Amino acid sequence: VTGIGLDRLSLNQATVRHLGLADAAALCARHDIPAIGLWRDRVAEIGLAGAVATVRSAGLHVSSLCRGGFFTRAAAEDPDGRAAALADNRAAIREAAGLGADALVLVCGGLVPGSRDLGLARRMVADAIGELVPQAQRLGVRLGVEPLHPMFCADRCVIASLGEAVDLAALFPADVVGVVVDTYHVWWDARLAEEIARAAGRIVSYQVCDWVVPLPADTLLGRGHVGDGVIDFGPISAAVTAAGYGGYVEVEIFNADVWAAPADQTAATVRERFGAVLDGSHHPG
Amino acid sequence: VTGIGLDRLSLNQATVRHLGLADAAALCARHDIPAIGLWRDRVAEIGLAGAVATVRSAGLHVSSLCRGGFFTRAAAEDPDGRAAALADNRAAIREAAGLGADALVLVCGGLVPGSRDLGLARRMVADAIGELVPQAQRLGVRLGVEPLHPMFCADRCVIASLGEAVDLAALFPADVVGVVVDTYHVWWDARLAEEIARAAGRIVSYQVCDWVVPLPADTLLGRGHVGDGVIDFGPISAAVTAAGYGGYVEVEIFNADVWAAPADQTAATVRERFGAVLDGSHHPG
Repeated sequence: VTGIGLDRLSLNQATVRHLGLADAAALCARHDIPAIGLWRDRVAEIGLAGAVATVRSAGLHVSSLCRGGFFTRAAAEDPDGRAAALADNRAAIREAAGLGADALVLVCGGLVPGSRDLGLARRMVADAIGELVPQAQRLGVRLGVEPLHPMFCADRCVIASLGEAVDLAALFPADVVGVVVDTYHVWWDARLAEEIARAAGRIVSYQVCDWVVPLPADTLLGRGHVGDGVIDFGPISAAVTAAGYGGYVEVEIFNADVWAAPADQTAATVRERFGAVLDGSHHPG
Repeated sequence: VTGIGLDRLSLNQATVRHLGLADAAALCARHDIPAIGLWRDRVAEIGLAGAVATVRSAGLHVSSLCRGGFFTRAAAEDPDGRAAALADNRAAIREAAGLGADALVLVCGGLVPGSRDLGLARRMVADAIGELVPQAQRLGVRLGVEPLHPMFCADRCVIASLGEAVDLAALFPADVVGVVVDTYHVWWDARLAEEIARAAGRIVSYQVCDWVVPLPADTLLGRGHVGDGVIDFGPISAAVTAAGYGGYVEVEIFNADVWAAPADQTAATVRERFGAVLDGSHHPG
């Protein structure tokens, strides 16, 4: 198995969430991390032009922009709510284009408020993506449908497995709609290898972090540094590579302890673990 | 859609976990609940013969015995650990036979301690079930593989979707190994309808409780009374019925608030909600 070299490492800025974009970009430059995954709130703080200038002057590639989506928050009979959600997604697409991001990550949204209808929510997601495709295609932005772990199905993302994300993406042209593979969300799936293979040509982002046991009280924050948990990154990375993905690999960690650590320490650990586990294809310890 | 009548209601005793078996049986009789799901620790307290006499004199059917499984706790190279786990499962099979339980529920176990190898854990589960099949067949006990929600994959059950459970059960005779459908664990699955259909003839237990949002700190306890959460029970029940399941439907709720409530109140709510949501096929409120 060929590892994934450090030249493909990207730091998702959520991993150092207390830093603004300029500080996060400087951190990447300082630690020889060639790419960064950006979040829209941090882009907004300095404006799109400022963000573009900042990442360019730091010599960074933008591997993804997080995030569009949340297509189900408005009820089906609330056209104003849906229009507002779509307008926000159109703005996200423009930002992704301006930043030259490899993908705009879509977190699709949970059940429609007051509804138990998973099918309705899933149809609303497909409809909304369909409305965004022409603009994304025109601007050269790839939309990445990210399946979230099934524990977030009710309130954050009704797309709860990679297979479902691939089925959804397949409704649209491959150069516009793809999928995001995040180890934290999909590692448990017995069908993972075959679904990654089926996603060939559609993988627009590969994100890594570990699943630590036990889960913390806030299940959104139960992610660990690569190597600190139970995920076997070797086979997943090999499958993603075999499916033709050769882009950046983002380390994205939501974890209160990681956020409390000094950013330089976090960046050093990210780099070290990436080299040991993803490049070296072995686990520490 | 034909509802599921109250004559098919079973109370899993975990829902009133602070009651011993005799008190739980009396509770069912008092509330006109015709069946009960038992737990082995509560059976052990009064002995198998005492448990059999108790449920018989209360006029109760035993819809399931919880539980066997945890086949992965011992490392592959620990034959004593594996032998002990198998011996405990053999005792569970004898108890299920003595009680006339419709199924022995298997919670298969998480990753092998110290290992990240999901495939190894899954093979150990299949191997262990294979070793139990002859005894179960001889004693007329059906083993029910219960897929647990993927958030328990690391530490409790590597069988994380119904499709996987069906694939596993299909390795063995249908009269000995089936699957347990628990709404809490499988509701999120976009493939649920087709997997339930594929489970036709293999469903040995149907358990219901609701998914409440947000999840509590202890994710084991995030279950609510039927109707208190986001699960749409109608389509799932219809699919289970269409797959040929006509047995008891167990209400099994792990929830600290439910446990703190008076048992008679809990039983009354269980019965009322079952009638409104599962029999009437509509949601309250």
